[in-house]
Amino acid sequence: MIRVVLLGAGNVAFHLAKAFTKSNDIDFIQRYGRNNKNDHLFDKTIPKTDSLNTLAKADIYIIAINDDSISTFSKQLNIDNGLVVHTSGSVPMESINCKANKGVFYPLQTFSIVQKIDYKQIPICLETEIKSDMEKLKHLAKSISNNVYEINSLQREKLHIAAVFANNFSNFMFTISKDICDDNDFSFDILKPLIEETSQKIKEINPKEAQTGPAKRNDKKIIEKHLSQLEGYQKEIYNLMSKSIIKTYNK
Amino acid sequence: MIRVVLLGAGNVAFHLAKAFTKSNDIDFIQRYGRNNKNDHLFDKTIPKTDSLNTLAKADIYIIAINDDSISTFSKQLNIDNGLVVHTSGSVPMESINCKANKGVFYPLQTFSIVQKIDYKQIPICLETEIKSDMEKLKHLAKSISNNVYEINSLQREKLHIAAVFANNFSNFMFTISKDICDDNDFSFDILKPLIEETSQKIKEINPKEAQTGPAKRNDKKIIEKHLSQLEGYQKEIYNLMSKSIIKTYNK
Repeated sequence: MIRVVLLGAGNVAFHLAKAFTKSNDIDFIQRYGRNNKNDHLFDKTIPKTDSLNTLAKADIYIIAINDDSISTFSKQLNIDNGLVVHTSGSVPMESINCKANKGVFYPLQTFSIVQKIDYKQIPICLETEIKSDMEKLKHLAKSISNNVYEINSLQREKLHIAAVFANNFSNFMFTISKDICDDNDFSFDILKPLIEETSQKIKEINPKEAQTGPAKRNDKKIIEKHLSQLEGYQKEIYNLMSKSIIKTYNK
Repeated sequence: MIRVVLLGAGNVAFHLAKAFTKSNDIDFIQRYGRNNKNDHLFDKTIPKTDSLNTLAKADIYIIAINDDSISTFSKQLNIDNGLVVHTSGSVPMESINCKANKGVFYPLQTFSIVQKIDYKQIPICLETEIKSDMEKLKHLAKSISNNVYEINSLQREKLHIAAVFANNFSNFMFTISKDICDDNDFSFDILKPLIEETSQKIKEINPKEAQTGPAKRNDKKIIEKHLSQLEGYQKEIYNLMSKSIIKTYNK
């Protein structure tokens, strides 16, 4: 069994700890948290330490802390053997500063502690410095998720950009949409089934083929009419998005 | 029982006909199609005519044809009594040109003939010229959908704009996201659970509260790093969206 030590006590660590506890394939031997703030949220059966000097000997150490702290934190780790991985989408593997082998164990999802998560569905992106470590890390990842991918640091950086478009920016489109509803006294609930279908559709067809709407049809009359009713960044976004869609579909 | 005549034989008419046929509350007495192109798709038990001179007497006539044709088509209708409605999101109620009472029966969804649709989930937005017609139209709508809303022409226009953001533009975000995946040799499948969660989240929380990402955190370092790796409209969109999100959350 792979022995795992988890370092961190935030959102990512909390959900990882839950998934590790459930798995029969993992020997989850210890977790580290520098204070006891979130202790009540974690399973009491997992030994906890608040001192890096008393870390247990493990096969894999997982750093699940703030992106900005990974480099400094890893310098304090007195680990010679085993594999040390971080869980960040945007920090290079090389930022880990310690003598042990390095790797990345990046679960791609937006976490909040309150939300229930089915970890089996969460994609986990892996990278290791040394090829033989990849098998070990894959074994760990597959014990909690059905979606495991090998991704190098450059791809992970691009993946993060792709996620900003797919998640952050599409969510902001929903915000603008709700603002328009609120400003005109009708319920955003009217749009929820459409939003659900938009995301369900791409499970089966390429989003490029799923595109509909005035810009896709290059319907300048409707676009102008809509633009005349918008202002500020809503207008700028409508204009730029429409132009980009027209460019994409009318080459 | 409300007697209904359906005019049109495209996507919207096809799915409405299916929903009407299933409902026990509606007397679906006739449908009109100017040719026999899609006849094989419709239930054979519904009487069909291809002549506007032989339209049956009904309580409600539903025009489910192209937006641009509604005005001209309705002029040819020789209907004095009853209620004539169109199914468009972007055409004013007043565009209906006939002596009967006017209204709108707008199902908000992107339809394609191949897709199976659970009509009960589809929001239907209603408007009538005369108040007493609203009850009749509501009765019809509620017999096929659980999501029925009263929306005036101005609101319907705004709803259409809101739908462009929520559906068309968010879908284009998914397209850009997939393009980035393709260009860097990793699978768009990695992002699908995240996309699903983004749309599931807004069922429970306001999208404004669900916002995450570098722009929400005003993380200029990451934004600059991402911008330096993008070009063309991808870069322009990333830049404008980030600026707009920063403006929204850092007032």
